[in-house]
Amino acid sequence: MNIKEIINKKRLGCELDRNEISYVIDGYVKGIIPDYQMSALLMAICTRGMTFFETLNLTDSMLHSGDILDLSSIDGIVVDKHSTGGIGDKVTLILAPLLASLDIKVAKMSGRGLGYTGGTIDKLESIPNFNVNLTEQEFIDEVNSIGMAITSPTTKIDVADKKIYSLRDATSTVESIPLIASSIMSKKLASNADIIVIDVKVGTGALIKNKKDAIKLSHYLMDIGSHYNKKVFCILTNMNQPLGYNIGNKLEVIEAMDALQGNGCKDLMEVVYSIASIIISEVRNISLDEACNLSIANINNGSAYNKFKEFVSSQNGDINNIKTNSKVVTVFSNKTGYINEIDAEKIGKLTLELGAGRISKEDTIDYDVGISLNKKVGDYVKEGDILARIYYNDKEIDINTFRGCFKYSQEKNKVDTIYGMIKCKDM
Amino acid sequence: MNIKEIINKKRLGCELDRNEISYVIDGYVKGIIPDYQMSALLMAICTRGMTFFETLNLTDSMLHSGDILDLSSIDGIVVDKHSTGGIGDKVTLILAPLLASLDIKVAKMSGRGLGYTGGTIDKLESIPNFNVNLTEQEFIDEVNSIGMAITSPTTKIDVADKKIYSLRDATSTVESIPLIASSIMSKKLASNADIIVIDVKVGTGALIKNKKDAIKLSHYLMDIGSHYNKKVFCILTNMNQPLGYNIGNKLEVIEAMDALQGNGCKDLMEVVYSIASIIISEVRNISLDEACNLSIANINNGSAYNKFKEFVSSQNGDINNIKTNSKVVTVFSNKTGYINEIDAEKIGKLTLELGAGRISKEDTIDYDVGISLNKKVGDYVKEGDILARIYYNDKEIDINTFRGCFKYSQEKNKVDTIYGMIKCKDM
Repeated sequence: MNIKEIINKKRLGCELDRNEISYVIDGYVKGIIPDYQMSALLMAICTRGMTFFETLNLTDSMLHSGDILDLSSIDGIVVDKHSTGGIGDKVTLILAPLLASLDIKVAKMSGRGLGYTGGTIDKLESIPNFNVNLTEQEFIDEVNSIGMAITSPTTKIDVADKKIYSLRDATSTVESIPLIASSIMSKKLASNADIIVIDVKVGTGALIKNKKDAIKLSHYLMDIGSHYNKKVFCILTNMNQPLGYNIGNKLEVIEAMDALQGNGCKDLMEVVYSIASIIISEVRNISLDEACNLSIANINNGSAYNKFKEFVSSQNGDINNIKTNSKVVTVFSNKTGYINEIDAEKIGKLTLELGAGRISKEDTIDYDVGISLNKKVGDYVKEGDILARIYYNDKEIDINTFRGCFKYSQEKNKVDTIYGMIKCKDM
Repeated sequence: MNIKEIINKKRLGCELDRNEISYVIDGYVKGIIPDYQMSALLMAICTRGMTFFETLNLTDSMLHSGDILDLSSIDGIVVDKHSTGGIGDKVTLILAPLLASLDIKVAKMSGRGLGYTGGTIDKLESIPNFNVNLTEQEFIDEVNSIGMAITSPTTKIDVADKKIYSLRDATSTVESIPLIASSIMSKKLASNADIIVIDVKVGTGALIKNKKDAIKLSHYLMDIGSHYNKKVFCILTNMNQPLGYNIGNKLEVIEAMDALQGNGCKDLMEVVYSIASIIISEVRNISLDEACNLSIANINNGSAYNKFKEFVSSQNGDINNIKTNSKVVTVFSNKTGYINEIDAEKIGKLTLELGAGRISKEDTIDYDVGISLNKKVGDYVKEGDILARIYYNDKEIDINTFRGCFKYSQEKNKVDTIYGMIKCKDM
């Protein structure tokens, strides 16, 4: 087989077969196929697309480039959740302890952020002493003992994805449904939970900009899951404005803790409750409404928050007196009206500029910086009202650029947080 | 400026501006932009295309990545000729001495072959002692003294093209009209002749597979030329069968010498006379017919061949007793009928397998091997007639695969060698 001919085939829009795809993944992981040939192929995939079978074969080759976790020593159904990446997305930090407080086991390997979307691991690392590097045994033991664990993937899981993902980031080949689907599913299948919920973010601040693509991606994800006898549920959620109030690592942990104590922002809690309901209804075989009531109860009675504290201390974290150490500037509105847009992508990029994320993989993160919104889309604002607070240290951002993220109108815009939920077919 | 954003723009099919293109070329030549980002961009260009203005800006950036030859010390009009690459294309070896014998100056920098298309420099190097590495001064002096010179480009000419071309070859991003046009024109503009004739090969054995693309490429080439006040003429010629009889370096030199002595294969001489006529008619301001008659006369009276000998000895070559040192196998036809197809691409690849070309840049060439056809499309062949002779040394090829390149029919197919000629507008 010949890599040049494989690239050429995809350049012309032809379908690659199973052997060609496995030849590429194997060769790339072993370093036989160099980055420059792989990036040409990735770009050809981005522009010419891949059929479902190509995507399935790609996922399978990537999955088998590393170990598959053995969760058989965990009793009962194990749940995993993934988000395609958004601004202010701290859902996992609330959802996982909420589910665990209802005796549903959550075993989640999570990633770091790259670019303007944050990563759960970075958020957890903003908690003093928090250990994100569990061994496989520690991970399983923690799920067995307290019902949940969140860790970085071991280096032996989905070796291909790690290498391909950083190349995609460097070559602007991230936004491709087949590449997104195979990257997510190879990781999730290697993590090997029974039920996988994927929060497909849609909008300006997400990889997927429109609902049509989100639906297509969801079907790819679920159909790949079916192939491996895994139940995959997709929820399509709005990422046209940041989720919740806070963007930035420690700020998001603080917001999640507030939410776990019953003070969650409306859109954030809608996403949390929607995902929780799907999972609880599936695991307990009850209606979505009943499942939702159970979730609300465990937030209100403190069980979810107690589980969060248990989880943090299990992984050596210390959340006593957690607060941001930074300078703060308050931004006031210079207009009056309803806010009808807060540009999530721009807010994400500004937060990145503050130092909350990584532009290249080697960058270090300032956990304390970020943005705390005081207003959300649909809120009425008067000139002089507080729009947001910017937490900064070494790097400042332009206040007028920040204000430009907010669009006003004289009428209130209705915005949906949840666009829909797509359940996999019964197997 | 940011390379990732530029790649992304092209991935989405947007037009790149002049500054973005020059940022890319400059960064790539300096090694600031790595191969893997460049190859992603090249693939995006292949699949999304480029407008004429992008192609012009790309050409200009590449042209200025190196020196531009100063031909001002050559008296009179200087001609350059280029072929987009074909199988058995030894036109330059006949055309250049023919024009020089008519006092038209030919200053040609020529390339080496890569893949299954041959390069004039490799063909010349099959002549014992031939010097293909003239200094700029030697090159100009030879044009002034004998009317022609052919050399390898100096390392200072079109630095960007050298680097981009080998990356394109390795990443299957060769077949793109904007990339082909900018590569050809940046080199030709750097060589700086007054009249540039480009033989655009069309067919299975060429980069350009159909006439529509050939016409599009021709207009790009001519319009880029106009921008620099250069007259560019394009001739579209058939590359569905090899040109002439011989394929392989020394075999092609031998065929060229035969042709210069009046024994040229019909299709080969059609191409030679067509190109010669365009140039002579332009330089002398006479009709194409008159120009063609002058060409035929100088082949028949030996002037062109004498000029060839003068040229070879000027560059230290020795053509006395030139012959191939290899084993020969004769291939007989196993069918009867008119030959209506000889697959040029497959013949090219088989010749490459024999060792006549390079698969990767580091390969060495066996100058003596190749294929000598005994029959061409339109010829009537009886079972047992000689189809061809294969000249081989270390590597053999499968005779049945070779026979498979020939298709037969019971009726004679008419084939055109010259599809048309496109002259640039008067300036």
